[in-house]
Amino acid sequence: MGEILVFGHKNPDTDSIVSSLVMANLEKKLGRNAISCRLGSINKETEYVLNYAGVEAPKLIESAEAGTEVILVDTANRKEVLDNIDELKIRKIVDHHQVAINTGYPLYYRAEPVGCTETIMYKLYKENGVEIEKTIAILMLSAIISDTLLFKSPTCTPEDEKTARELANIAGIKIEEYGMEMLKAGTDLSSFSIDEILKLDAKEINLKEVKSIIAQINTASIPDVMQKKNDLESGMQKVIDEKGLDLFVFLITDIINSNSQVIALGKNANIVEKAYGVKLVENTAMLEGVVSRKKQVVPILTENA
Amino acid sequence: MGEILVFGHKNPDTDSIVSSLVMANLEKKLGRNAISCRLGSINKETEYVLNYAGVEAPKLIESAEAGTEVILVDTANRKEVLDNIDELKIRKIVDHHQVAINTGYPLYYRAEPVGCTETIMYKLYKENGVEIEKTIAILMLSAIISDTLLFKSPTCTPEDEKTARELANIAGIKIEEYGMEMLKAGTDLSSFSIDEILKLDAKEINLKEVKSIIAQINTASIPDVMQKKNDLESGMQKVIDEKGLDLFVFLITDIINSNSQVIALGKNANIVEKAYGVKLVENTAMLEGVVSRKKQVVPILTENA
Repeated sequence: MGEILVFGHKNPDTDSIVSSLVMANLEKKLGRNAISCRLGSINKETEYVLNYAGVEAPKLIESAEAGTEVILVDTANRKEVLDNIDELKIRKIVDHHQVAINTGYPLYYRAEPVGCTETIMYKLYKENGVEIEKTIAILMLSAIISDTLLFKSPTCTPEDEKTARELANIAGIKIEEYGMEMLKAGTDLSSFSIDEILKLDAKEINLKEVKSIIAQINTASIPDVMQKKNDLESGMQKVIDEKGLDLFVFLITDIINSNSQVIALGKNANIVEKAYGVKLVENTAMLEGVVSRKKQVVPILTENA
Repeated sequence: MGEILVFGHKNPDTDSIVSSLVMANLEKKLGRNAISCRLGSINKETEYVLNYAGVEAPKLIESAEAGTEVILVDTANRKEVLDNIDELKIRKIVDHHQVAINTGYPLYYRAEPVGCTETIMYKLYKENGVEIEKTIAILMLSAIISDTLLFKSPTCTPEDEKTARELANIAGIKIEEYGMEMLKAGTDLSSFSIDEILKLDAKEINLKEVKSIIAQINTASIPDVMQKKNDLESGMQKVIDEKGLDLFVFLITDIINSNSQVIALGKNANIVEKAYGVKLVENTAMLEGVVSRKKQVVPILTENA
């Protein structure tokens, strides 16, 4: 087996970057020539994690030659990876999302409905008898904290928390203290333009026939972000016009109190009202207890689309 | 978790039937209300296996209500299962084929590019600490022998053979002797009409744009089957006309000598000639060393389509 590229989804979050590093490390330990890659820039939270762990970011790639062998981590969605994915040879997938890819050939596929890819990676290390070193433990733990919002997201399973606590022992980290610092680092929007904020963690999703973007950012203070509401709305409207969207949902998620303020624009914005039984006032509403796009937003909006 | 239906692909082969039984048994041992099902009749080889093991066939089902929870085994192909698969909740997939399904939700997905689903099932039993009883071992071993043609198929990996030998110890079975008897039982076509023979193990596959069926039977004597050549061709032509096929490939696979006689009909029959560098004489040719549809037929025909 020659060179094999390991990458997660575009707009990489901490789990995607960490999965790429952790999986490439495992493959290398097992004697394979794996290269950790990423399909986009590092966000502030991930930057904090990489600095803390003293690890370099994966290699940024924008394309891969037809026939290249790849491993997908933290995604099994052809729209979220390289455009020519159908020309590449997917050797493995390790993921915790929906299946949204087709291959003409068998491959190694490992997915579980858990809160974070690292909870599966942890098992792969154990099964292969590869020691989880301190640096790897820091990375894995950080991704679990990120994806589960410190175990407060409804996507978090008991297994995620158990795995995180075992990793914290290896890493020598106090989870709550470190976790809150890390999450807060991710809420620093000061260096971003409005357009960049809207793209930081945006997913293009079809809710049945409704062409949508659902973007999300974390914050420790919803009012701070809502000061930019007018500019955010202008930016969202621009994207709607450019991409011909039916709906743009922007979630401002309070990581302290576990709520989300939603801004919804587009001709199908009423789906949000129907889905949550709320009234959008000046395009916005508070969604109590909603923090998980995957579990509390996409399926509910889809049902009501 | 309520009732959960476990089934493999239509036109079930031994691996599909065994996977359903073995997976449902594992789920039950883990406290879940799983029901082993099948989507078609039991073939002669599988009948031999079930009789030997003293196990009843899975429950035959033709449909399932929307919302039913299911586990797919030995397939991840939406076309090979129930027509309303998109309305069902797929909780798990355990498979060794291509990915040809999309879900809107995360699930447990376990696939490896090995020769038989049971090689993965064996690991699942171990990982869950569930003892493999003698009856289960007989079933699993039989499926591995079936899918790998007694380890002679190029789809067979060292792991398949190793797993089979461990299962043979539990089952108290001499692999070569039992395996040849079992495979031969599967070659008995005496009770089938021509139409039934053509459907016994037929897969509808699009080779790029070429609408095809690739059917396969095993035999201990190619000349015996070729006595029916005229009738087989009439039957194939009838299916081509009915389904508007571009290609019907019928493989008669010699399990003793590991070759296949191919009969190819349809306006794209020349793909077979191109793919294997052979000349079809009266629609037929010998394909030396070809025994695996998955590894030696589908990809090669696709490349040349």
